[in-house]
Amino acid sequence: MLKIGLLGCGRIGQVHARSIGQIDDARVTVVADAFADTARALAEKTGAQVMDSQALIESPEVDAVVIGTPTDTHYDLIHAAADAGKAIFCEKPVDMSADRIRDCIKVVEASGVAFMTAFNRRFDPNFANVQARIAGGDIGPVEIVTIQSRDPSPPPISYIQSSGGLFRDMMIHDLDMARFLLAEEPISVFAVGSSLVDPDIGRAGDVDTAAVTLTTASGKICQISNSRRATYGYDQRIEVHGASGMIRAENMLENTVEIASEAGFRKAPAQHFFLERYESAYRAEMQHFVRGVVDGAPLSPGIFDGLQAQLLADAATRSWTEGKPIAVNVAG
Amino acid sequence: MLKIGLLGCGRIGQVHARSIGQIDDARVTVVADAFADTARALAEKTGAQVMDSQALIESPEVDAVVIGTPTDTHYDLIHAAADAGKAIFCEKPVDMSADRIRDCIKVVEASGVAFMTAFNRRFDPNFANVQARIAGGDIGPVEIVTIQSRDPSPPPISYIQSSGGLFRDMMIHDLDMARFLLAEEPISVFAVGSSLVDPDIGRAGDVDTAAVTLTTASGKICQISNSRRATYGYDQRIEVHGASGMIRAENMLENTVEIASEAGFRKAPAQHFFLERYESAYRAEMQHFVRGVVDGAPLSPGIFDGLQAQLLADAATRSWTEGKPIAVNVAG
Amino acid sequence: MLKIGLLGCGRIGQVHARSIGQIDDARVTVVADAFADTARALAEKTGAQVMDSQALIESPEVDAVVIGTPTDTHYDLIHAAADAGKAIFCEKPVDMSADRIRDCIKVVEASGVAFMTAFNRRFDPNFANVQARIAGGDIGPVEIVTIQSRDPSPPPISYIQSSGGLFRDMMIHDLDMARFLLAEEPISVFAVGSSLVDPDIGRAGDVDTAAVTLTTASGKICQISNSRRATYGYDQRIEVHGASGMIRAENMLENTVEIASEAGFRKAPAQHFFLERYESAYRAEMQHFVRGVVDGAPLSPGIFDGLQAQLLADAATRSWTEGKPIAVNVAG
Amino acid sequence: MLKIGLLGCGRIGQVHARSIGQIDDARVTVVADAFADTARALAEKTGAQVMDSQALIESPEVDAVVIGTPTDTHYDLIHAAADAGKAIFCEKPVDMSADRIRDCIKVVEASGVAFMTAFNRRFDPNFANVQARIAGGDIGPVEIVTIQSRDPSPPPISYIQSSGGLFRDMMIHDLDMARFLLAEEPISVFAVGSSLVDPDIGRAGDVDTAAVTLTTASGKICQISNSRRATYGYDQRIEVHGASGMIRAENMLENTVEIASEAGFRKAPAQHFFLERYESAYRAEMQHFVRGVVDGAPLSPGIFDGLQAQLLADAATRSWTEGKPIAVNVAG
Repeated sequence: MLKIGLLGCGRIGQVHARSIGQIDDARVTVVADAFADTARALAEKTGAQVMDSQALIESPEVDAVVIGTPTDTHYDLIHAAADAGKAIFCEKPVDMSADRIRDCIKVVEASGVAFMTAFNRRFDPNFANVQARIAGGDIGPVEIVTIQSRDPSPPPISYIQSSGGLFRDMMIHDLDMARFLLAEEPISVFAVGSSLVDPDIGRAGDVDTAAVTLTTASGKICQISNSRRATYGYDQRIEVHGASGMIRAENMLENTVEIASEAGFRKAPAQHFFLERYESAYRAEMQHFVRGVVDGAPLSPGIFDGLQAQLLADAATRSWTEGKPIAVNVAG
Repeated sequence: MLKIGLLGCGRIGQVHARSIGQIDDARVTVVADAFADTARALAEKTGAQVMDSQALIESPEVDAVVIGTPTDTHYDLIHAAADAGKAIFCEKPVDMSADRIRDCIKVVEASGVAFMTAFNRRFDPNFANVQARIAGGDIGPVEIVTIQSRDPSPPPISYIQSSGGLFRDMMIHDLDMARFLLAEEPISVFAVGSSLVDPDIGRAGDVDTAAVTLTTASGKICQISNSRRATYGYDQRIEVHGASGMIRAENMLENTVEIASEAGFRKAPAQHFFLERYESAYRAEMQHFVRGVVDGAPLSPGIFDGLQAQLLADAATRSWTEGKPIAVNVAG
Repeated sequence: MLKIGLLGCGRIGQVHARSIGQIDDARVTVVADAFADTARALAEKTGAQVMDSQALIESPEVDAVVIGTPTDTHYDLIHAAADAGKAIFCEKPVDMSADRIRDCIKVVEASGVAFMTAFNRRFDPNFANVQARIAGGDIGPVEIVTIQSRDPSPPPISYIQSSGGLFRDMMIHDLDMARFLLAEEPISVFAVGSSLVDPDIGRAGDVDTAAVTLTTASGKICQISNSRRATYGYDQRIEVHGASGMIRAENMLENTVEIASEAGFRKAPAQHFFLERYESAYRAEMQHFVRGVVDGAPLSPGIFDGLQAQLLADAATRSWTEGKPIAVNVAG
Repeated sequence: MLKIGLLGCGRIGQVHARSIGQIDDARVTVVADAFADTARALAEKTGAQVMDSQALIESPEVDAVVIGTPTDTHYDLIHAAADAGKAIFCEKPVDMSADRIRDCIKVVEASGVAFMTAFNRRFDPNFANVQARIAGGDIGPVEIVTIQSRDPSPPPISYIQSSGGLFRDMMIHDLDMARFLLAEEPISVFAVGSSLVDPDIGRAGDVDTAAVTLTTASGKICQISNSRRATYGYDQRIEVHGASGMIRAENMLENTVEIASEAGFRKAPAQHFFLERYESAYRAEMQHFVRGVVDGAPLSPGIFDGLQAQLLADAATRSWTEGKPIAVNVAG
């Protein structure tokens, strides 16, 4: 039985607690949160104890920690957990600064603890199936990757202001997905962006509509487009064109019902809420972590993947600002 | 160059003239119609001569006749054309009376002329593909056939009154399709029907909503459903369940466009007009006739198929009237 | 907190236990099973006590019972639970004998306990959506219902022999679905059936391929087809044609991935396993039961629905045996 | 009756002759081709006379010319036809040099003759429907356009060498489509490209895999991707994301048939041959030309559209070569 300490009991912490509840050989033993009520509520539901972060990390009742706290706390928690020799599951982004992530990599590698960066989309059954079949050779060598990723509606301006910008906050998922599907590091990033959804987002110095082109050393191309608003739900599609075929994953609709009338054939909109859309991804992600820690199997994506995605997001931001393609050397 | 005489220059005659215009080694040489103006208009368009029916049939300028006149004239025209040794393409139904069709079979067989019954749907590229793949073993032995066939809107009551009823007028196409897909003669027919679309159809002694179950000696089952009205277009679907798979042909929509909004994902309605929906079927049907006559290849469906479909439609009508399944011995 | 006693801890009992585990104001307090180990395993997982059936039913720790035992035990358990004044959730079929179901109805009505028959498919989000939109008038009055229901593969012959036959064991779900969608009682049943999948099923006196036609007093028509084998997964589709439109629910595929190659565009097969396919239906069904009991809201489907489905299955069996349509008076 | 002179009787000339044959008030009266046999064959089929180009252009039997000759002859033929006051339908590209197109614009504008550039894809019923609905406000203001355009297989290297390169030869269609859908001129072009399909294409100084990003002054974004090879047919898709919805046109498949087996649900590949895929587009395009000339209605796309597409293709080529975005001022 893997004993898990939950750092952060907010929305994403609760998602992970629910996933752990469905895994036979794992349970939440200790929880911590800056807000005592939040911690207590989750403790009651799961039968866990409440501690402060440091006590949780050091507790013999904790084999592994799940970090679901605000991004700016990750750095210290990772250092503490690595020092305590605990396996670490950390929400993305590891940190907003690539240099600080490099520091974390050092301490994690020095301590030898298992580390997993929570890019949940890699565990979506549809996307995972796409990647597995590419890896299995079903479409031959990859040539063009297309990622269309659009949120149902923009977050509040206050969130935008501290988000690091669309490329680091939203597109980082797609940049990680691009690496997952290309199976080769991008060497160049070109980004364009506009504020078409809400002029206040533009005034806040950010974009709400953006497109990125990645290229790799062998000539593979990836096109990503993002919008902060899609009236028809949470639009999450990937497509990969290869030498012997093409593979794509379409949206998850709310149901399979189709209605026909003079107006034609109508299906349901895409699932709107990310927790619903990626429910099975969150579950599979936590299963991967538990299995890896229990069985000593390698965890992926790791902390290095967290760094690479951040470097690509930084490069995209710079490309958008400077209006030119940016060379990236993500292997460094 | 196959010289074709067109008997009947109405809507369906014009369809066949257009199809012939696209076949390299065939042309319309003579046309006939009870209405002089109708005949003249088509003659001008195609460069054909106008004659009366008997002269057309006997003309040395005619190798083959296409019969697109009212059903009650088919019997005499078939006899005359068979006597004159001309290949015959005859619109369905061959006749409303099975006995009179049997007479036609005799004269056609005695004369040895080529004969084709115009069940156009067998030549629809989608349905033909389904049948070819069943014949090729792609789904293993056939077990259940499902045919859903619904007109966009009912014909005028005056048409209903002289139509022979839904089973003979509308479902006959589906009964032929059932034979095409089952590849085994039905031995039993059970029919139910209602007047739900228009009570005047019920008052005229007919139904506008109907369902039939066919069974074969080896135990294959076919379910057909008809409606005289489908708000979403001309609904024409077939599906065949076999031992190793299932194959189906969906509707032809007006276009491939899909629009997404809060209401979901919407595609165009099905094509509404039968001439548009089956345009390529009419073309392929005439090509099959011309090829068969020119090359001496067998024509299918033949006159026997015209009889079998009529016998099934008669049995369905009787089953509906008597409220019980009717045994059919279509091979006789 | 609704305290639930689980009668039967086999596969379906475990499904219900899992569903209850996801409902905030319900928990499994007592379990019972003919096999002590089976009961103990589920007790450990849920924190419930183990008792024998009668003790469970009478326990003050039980507000409601979930009956998931073999069908021939339902009768006594329903009587005992009704006597004890406990709300009852009973797996289908209530009983194999319509007369014994009528007995159960009497005791349930006399005692006034809440009763729900577990026709899980009514709670499938897709099918429930179809029914709700029909009820909301989205397609106008219902005219033709089409239900295609095919199992991935046949059960063992030993199961077939004690199953009551395809119409009572498998099609009963579709007959209930027909009532759910028609919103009018059938007055006539016509059934055909064959043994095409496995000749041993035929030798056991049953069919593996079957089709039924239902009609209602107002002339609505329903066609159902069943097969015990579908190579492409668990095939579960419904379609309803109405005066102003058509609505249908397609299969749930294993994922949303599509791969394109010379062979065309290929999607995943349908989900194979009924517990996976109807996972959300089982959850929604139990939520409906708990809500109804806790809030005193009416439960549907009730015990009367259990009777009606059984009467239709009996009539279908008789129609198949006698080769003629059977009039049913399900309201009696 | 509009009398049309056909300059060029090769593959595309024959397509246009076939389209004209289906238009009631137009016919081919004179044909010309560098190869006498090719001209004669088409003359026999259509009943036209054979002349040399200059005689055709000056003939009183010709009201309008259709230019389907090699690109390097367009310039002189346009000048001659404009001088002769004949309406002009010209295959794309008008010329490989933007300056020479500007010369043609001058002579066409000076003469006042009607001119249409044959960007056939604008007349595809699916794409035309998408554009019409955008123009009608169905998705609100356009934000992101995505165009995926992939040929079934690459042309011979000899063709590649004289083609002007992928951006001018293949992507020019997509660049015109982008202008059609954006309804605003691009101001910036960024292109990347690789030789992944065939290294010989790279050795010939061209690419076979490419992606372009366009932006407009108001911030709209367009992403285009091209490949010279798609195993699953001629891949032609467009998608437009707008403020209130999204609209897309999927591929035209060979048929509507779907087959299900253990391997899942499989549909036909996309239509392979461009003449088949765009058959209805070619017909609609010629109808637009004839209607415009006969009724004096404006023709679109015009010669200016021919210039703009060429300028975008030139900019894309330069962007790919120089590795940076290129500003375009297409209005000049």
